[in-house]
Amino acid sequence: MLFSLTMLPPIAIGKLMGDPELSNFWWGFGIVLVVGFLLWLPFKGCKNELRLRDGYLIAVLFWVGLSVAATIPLSLSTNFEINLASAFFETVSGFTTTGASVIVGIDSLPRSINFYRLELHWLGGMGMIVLAVAILPMLGIGGMQLYKAEAPGPVKDSKLTPRITETARLLWYVYLALTILGIGLFLLGGMSWFDAVCHAFSAVSTGGFSTHDSSLSYFNNAFIDYSAIFLMIMGGVSFTLHFTVMHHKSIRFYWQDSEFKLYLFIMLLVCSICILVLMQNSVYPDFLTTLRYASFQVVSIMTSTGLLTTDFSVWPTLLPVLLVFVSFVGGCAGSTGGGLKVIRFLLLMKQGWREVNILTHPRAHTHIKINGEPVPEGVTRSVWGFFAMYVAVFAIFMLGMMAAGHDQVTAFSAVAAALNNMGVGLGTVSSNFSGLDDFTKWWLSFAMLMGRLELFTILVLFSPAFWRK
Amino acid sequence: MLFSLTMLPPIAIGKLMGDPELSNFWWGFGIVLVVGFLLWLPFKGCKNELRLRDGYLIAVLFWVGLSVAATIPLSLSTNFEINLASAFFETVSGFTTTGASVIVGIDSLPRSINFYRLELHWLGGMGMIVLAVAILPMLGIGGMQLYKAEAPGPVKDSKLTPRITETARLLWYVYLALTILGIGLFLLGGMSWFDAVCHAFSAVSTGGFSTHDSSLSYFNNAFIDYSAIFLMIMGGVSFTLHFTVMHHKSIRFYWQDSEFKLYLFIMLLVCSICILVLMQNSVYPDFLTTLRYASFQVVSIMTSTGLLTTDFSVWPTLLPVLLVFVSFVGGCAGSTGGGLKVIRFLLLMKQGWREVNILTHPRAHTHIKINGEPVPEGVTRSVWGFFAMYVAVFAIFMLGMMAAGHDQVTAFSAVAAALNNMGVGLGTVSSNFSGLDDFTKWWLSFAMLMGRLELFTILVLFSPAFWRK
Ligand SMILES: [K+]
Ligand SMILES: [K+]
Repeated sequence: MLFSLTMLPPIAIGKLMGDPELSNFWWGFGIVLVVGFLLWLPFKGCKNELRLRDGYLIAVLFWVGLSVAATIPLSLSTNFEINLASAFFETVSGFTTTGASVIVGIDSLPRSINFYRLELHWLGGMGMIVLAVAILPMLGIGGMQLYKAEAPGPVKDSKLTPRITETARLLWYVYLALTILGIGLFLLGGMSWFDAVCHAFSAVSTGGFSTHDSSLSYFNNAFIDYSAIFLMIMGGVSFTLHFTVMHHKSIRFYWQDSEFKLYLFIMLLVCSICILVLMQNSVYPDFLTTLRYASFQVVSIMTSTGLLTTDFSVWPTLLPVLLVFVSFVGGCAGSTGGGLKVIRFLLLMKQGWREVNILTHPRAHTHIKINGEPVPEGVTRSVWGFFAMYVAVFAIFMLGMMAAGHDQVTAFSAVAAALNNMGVGLGTVSSNFSGLDDFTKWWLSFAMLMGRLELFTILVLFSPAFWRK
Repeated sequence: MLFSLTMLPPIAIGKLMGDPELSNFWWGFGIVLVVGFLLWLPFKGCKNELRLRDGYLIAVLFWVGLSVAATIPLSLSTNFEINLASAFFETVSGFTTTGASVIVGIDSLPRSINFYRLELHWLGGMGMIVLAVAILPMLGIGGMQLYKAEAPGPVKDSKLTPRITETARLLWYVYLALTILGIGLFLLGGMSWFDAVCHAFSAVSTGGFSTHDSSLSYFNNAFIDYSAIFLMIMGGVSFTLHFTVMHHKSIRFYWQDSEFKLYLFIMLLVCSICILVLMQNSVYPDFLTTLRYASFQVVSIMTSTGLLTTDFSVWPTLLPVLLVFVSFVGGCAGSTGGGLKVIRFLLLMKQGWREVNILTHPRAHTHIKINGEPVPEGVTRSVWGFFAMYVAVFAIFMLGMMAAGHDQVTAFSAVAAALNNMGVGLGTVSSNFSGLDDFTKWWLSFAMLMGRLELFTILVLFSPAFWRK
């Protein structure tokens, strides 16, 4: 079972070999292949069924282990100077589809390195889909047991291994289709093949790396901007939902999904606020320009992509902080997006409203419903707990940043950028994370992993109950 | 029933008449007396038992109504210029024991006005004790139904009216005793009678107004500082617990209370962090000075008093934000302190830890216990809901502040100061709130009332279910 996991990095890097001619990638390939083989040996004979505990270990090992492995080619690179903290930060940022970069001068990087960074995004997105659809529901983190029975496809037996494989295969087709669509759109918009592939990877995985320091504003092309908006919105939607729509060839299924509707509603609402404030302050010359920049940044931040067409951190008054707040809502569950996830936000709102009503009618037993189905109490409790833990973890990471000497705005936004896997900050990290010291880079790398693994996957490892028996 | 409530302001102001010779207080006395009488007339015949809904209305009317009434003397004052927004802010800040002031030049204010400001604190503290011990448990806000059966005193029948009166009477004796002790301590420390009374009011009610612009640092006296620390700690403890200790003449009861122990533990922990960081940065010349200033500010902020002996907003790195975070924990339930309350924080921690354990052992049914008693699931859910609502309300108030053009540090800390009834901010509000525009003053006044009334008391008024039938 663990075999496929330990063998993934060589495959990933092996595939990549077609592109670069650099020894660092060959070294990376070799080291990972040997280490992976050595790790695989003791598990050779195991064909056991997955237990609950293994789910956590796989998820953590997948992201942490692969991040460490994927750091090798960057560290060994002779084309540019990068220390270990920066290389690890960049790799984790890639794998967790955060997209915060510590490299300045991206335009002049070797193409192999740039392709590698974007490929990490794309692989991270694939990993996230499996994590969200197959592993998190099994673990039941933060109410995700809701999705336990929902995995698509013909295989629905009780054995987990074949179901994960089958689910993953089907959803990766969807992911691949979206990526190809993205490449086509970007080519139409006038990008080179290389840029089109890289930015399709970045948008569909809601990653946010670019091949240019100035991100998507390098192209300054409205068609490209709107194409990216479409791809990011798609990347932030549950891939199970995409599959259902494709399978039944009917977009009706989008409109039957409460999470999807709220996702679009929040985007439209925040976009309207941004347009209003921007127009009132005459930031852009006309309405269409305002619409283009506002809708791009709102979609990019809410889906936790973090591509930029303008520097929103200097937008007037409440907008920068409003956008950072919106990144906490994030994408839909089962997508590549980060944040709390829209479904949890929906449950929190419904639960909060129920608490208000219970106060005046204590004996009324109202049940919360999602898509017409009542939500079990266990899910309700898990979602409350997840939210509270998110706030607590956020506060701890922010205090850590401030202890390292960063100002409040930087600390607040950098932690939001990392924990929500969004990748864009305010203050000194509004365009790039390269100004940070090494401690902060490690600290934020940890925050990105925490965010991607939905906190609890890592927190349970600290619980004595996990290791008992 | 409502009679006593509408008649409270004239009594409050009437008592005050011994001190000032100013027409504005006589006008205030007259207007409130007449309006109170007119409001009382339609309810003359009512002797109905309190219903749940009345609890909310009483609580809201008490704070909002009395704040409006108490604004009159300040507005009518001819001795100094103050507009309506500032007068209302100052009054609400007094009544909610927030202690944020918009008046500069407090030292030269007429004594009647200063005494009046501090008396508002003291009355607000009395009101808070009744609210927390008698009304909130009945309403069951945020888990406070835990305290339903705990009201002290001999009268324990099911009729609410005599129980509230009796409970209030007993706890007010405790409050009065602490105040007298405080006056004595401050006199010993060398304060004038006037200053001693005012600052005892301020410390015991965890209010934070002072009779000097420079707050308690005006006296620069270690004995006064440590006396204030003692009084603030006492003010932040449940008055029911104080009563139990006094009744049984044994401080053993303090150590049997989980909330009290956690309250002291957090104080000691944060204090240690502050001392370490301050020593490392050599902010104060020696350990004793560091201990004095650090312990004072930690106790003052955590109990949500907000008296100052130093400008902690310029302390190094993480300390200012750490202290603002600690003010979210606040005092114990049933005290005059603000914030989330220690008991809710304790429940949140225990519940969060349980969620982590449930993930690895889904079938284990563990119950949370407080003081050895299992906590009902309804309480657990209420506490989760309260916390989430607190975060949501905080975010909305902060965005409102930023829409009014304030920077992020000011918005964050001013809303924390208001919502937690703490009264001290960072950024442009680090010493005084006088620089704010009128919109912000109204906005923060609303936040102070929301915080004091534990959010839900006001939120239910917006629920259709509240007004139905
Ligand atoms: K991202
Ligand atoms: K206060």
